[in-house]
Amino acid sequence: MDTQEPYLLTPGPITTSMRTKKAMLHDWGSWDDDFNEITAQVRERLLKAANAEETHVCVPVQGSGSFAVEATLGTLVPKEGKVLVLMNGAYGQRMGKTLDYMGRAFVALDKGDYEPPRGEEVEKILAEDPAITHVAVVYCETSSGILNPVQEIAEVVHAAGRSLIIDAMSAFGALPVDAQTLPFDALISAANKCFEGVPGFGYAIIKKPVLAASQGRAHSLCLDLYDQWVYMEKTGQWRFTPPTHVVAAFLEAMKEHEEEGGVQGRYQRYCRNRDRMVAGMRALGFKTLLEDQWLSPVITTFFSPEAEEFNFKTFYNLLKERNFIIYPGKLTEAESFRIGCIGQLHDEQIDQLIVAVQEVLEAMNITLKKTA
Amino acid sequence: MDTQEPYLLTPGPITTSMRTKKAMLHDWGSWDDDFNEITAQVRERLLKAANAEETHVCVPVQGSGSFAVEATLGTLVPKEGKVLVLMNGAYGQRMGKTLDYMGRAFVALDKGDYEPPRGEEVEKILAEDPAITHVAVVYCETSSGILNPVQEIAEVVHAAGRSLIIDAMSAFGALPVDAQTLPFDALISAANKCFEGVPGFGYAIIKKPVLAASQGRAHSLCLDLYDQWVYMEKTGQWRFTPPTHVVAAFLEAMKEHEEEGGVQGRYQRYCRNRDRMVAGMRALGFKTLLEDQWLSPVITTFFSPEAEEFNFKTFYNLLKERNFIIYPGKLTEAESFRIGCIGQLHDEQIDQLIVAVQEVLEAMNITLKKTA
Ligand SMILES: Cc1ncc(COP(=O)(O)O)c(C=O)c1O
Ligand SMILES: Cc1ncc(COP(=O)(O)O)c(C=O)c1O
Repeated sequence: MDTQEPYLLTPGPITTSMRTKKAMLHDWGSWDDDFNEITAQVRERLLKAANAEETHVCVPVQGSGSFAVEATLGTLVPKEGKVLVLMNGAYGQRMGKTLDYMGRAFVALDKGDYEPPRGEEVEKILAEDPAITHVAVVYCETSSGILNPVQEIAEVVHAAGRSLIIDAMSAFGALPVDAQTLPFDALISAANKCFEGVPGFGYAIIKKPVLAASQGRAHSLCLDLYDQWVYMEKTGQWRFTPPTHVVAAFLEAMKEHEEEGGVQGRYQRYCRNRDRMVAGMRALGFKTLLEDQWLSPVITTFFSPEAEEFNFKTFYNLLKERNFIIYPGKLTEAESFRIGCIGQLHDEQIDQLIVAVQEVLEAMNITLKKTA
Repeated sequence: MDTQEPYLLTPGPITTSMRTKKAMLHDWGSWDDDFNEITAQVRERLLKAANAEETHVCVPVQGSGSFAVEATLGTLVPKEGKVLVLMNGAYGQRMGKTLDYMGRAFVALDKGDYEPPRGEEVEKILAEDPAITHVAVVYCETSSGILNPVQEIAEVVHAAGRSLIIDAMSAFGALPVDAQTLPFDALISAANKCFEGVPGFGYAIIKKPVLAASQGRAHSLCLDLYDQWVYMEKTGQWRFTPPTHVVAAFLEAMKEHEEEGGVQGRYQRYCRNRDRMVAGMRALGFKTLLEDQWLSPVITTFFSPEAEEFNFKTFYNLLKERNFIIYPGKLTEAESFRIGCIGQLHDEQIDQLIVAVQEVLEAMNITLKKTA
């Protein structure tokens, strides 16, 4: 345990290692070769993690993950394009809102709070609407924690000759992404997710000829990934001041990621966290929103206990006193809360969490009916 | 001296204190009250530094300073607005480019590389073009280091009933800003400038009724400061993941700023840095681009020596070996370089710098003609 502060059982910012944080105890000139080298290494390692070195380029952009999503949509979708947005939660919806702001046409396949969009449905919509140029999907829809079936979706989009944009924010780094078998034009994530960096920038991994053809499309100077890419290739620098400390921390986090066995190693730890956590919570009488098949090793939604004594804010505060910060739910219909399993969390913390939840239930005078 | 690494004599990222950097050795939940309290304090202190608590609001936004400039222009300038952009360097030009991307009309008063735009000229243009709704000016135009006469410009803009947007990126925190005597609708800066934080977000200080009237104008979801403001007022949170570590470091930096005597104290140190540095460089035979009246206590442009032996890259590298990172010039006509005096720099470092420059000239075999 590096620090005495609460563990973040959230979908990012997450609990980072002290080694990653300590990488921020320096200052870099954003124009200097030493920092350019950090940027170059980060970009290279990200491409490698997606097995995309030969086919794609990696373009980082300042801001949060949503900035990277907006930048990607703005840079790749031409003014006369039309996007099919697959929605089953807040982040799919946000892509729709983003397109709305930019004045780009889109249609939504909205599956509500947590039903997965399926390949077949997408195939049908694409066949019926030839005006659709792009499909946008969320890999792990963090609002419920569902793992969407991106492989089957990517395949039908590819077969229909359209362009696929994947918001892999809370997935990339832990869930498998192989650009050679998962056909996508762009895949987006951010520093503070499964690679376990601190927040401050996002990035997109974009098929090179697709980005090369995207000059002059962006609605925003700062969010123009084409311009950012061209400048970075030419100078090694970011166009505007990068979050130097955050980028340096990310490189350190990527080294730790590699030492843990890369995507595969991290996937295994997160899965173990999830399995241990879900088993413990179920043993206490909690129920997950989703069936096991759709549970991501990222974050899990639990229904709030029906007991009158249950109040999320109290539950949250009592758990925080015990050093765990959980996350509110985001369902429109049922009362729920979420527990994340990404970041510097290991068996020990999961076990402590289950003990803490049990204590808090007792403190709140809540007895859950345990099903067999 | 906190670290062994080079001092950044640049306009930001700058050399920050170890205390500021150490504030990043924690993780925060972006949803948690502890972090909301940090955000609230930062916003309050910024308003106070501009004497704007009663009249303006402070809205931070993720990304670099340019993101805050674009967000402010996009949020405040209506689609049918027209901006007069005062240009005398790269950052004025960038505002024009930003408006171009957003499809907002603008005209430029372009004074070239370093001539200051004057109140009289602005007055005349506004009188002749009633379609102009906004004027945009750079306080300290970092590309030459000139301090533009914002007070006289603000007064004529105010008298003409137009809206003034000030890019005070490299000025606010050290140069005086009093919202009660300097009439502006918006003033923009970023974390890594005169308050001496690390890079990762920017902010605008905006007249409250002006922002309140700006719903639905922005060209971008992520850069919509109206939306960011409304959400922040309601929840205490940023709309999308904030750069938590950077924000926490900024609060620490603001505390140090206060301990140094606030804007006035910092202004004095930076002026001392500049005076000492310019005097030392002149004694070595270097010439400043600008006359003393226009020299900012932020960054100073020097003409490159005419000697054939002079090569910026060599000069830069030899100074870096001696622990100082300087900045390239940005003039279109003359060869030049820049030396900044903001950040954790004191008499001692300035004196060391002058010694280092002298050594480097000797190493490069350059003799400068010393004028009396
Ligand atoms: C799937 C997904 N997309 C987008 C975002 C938005 O990222 P940010 O909050 O960094 O803007 C998140 C954040 O958790 C996410 O999980
Ligand atoms: C006056 C001015 N405006 C805008 C900017 C752009 O800021 P950033 O590089 O953080 O985007 C700078 C950066 O130094 C600046 O000095």
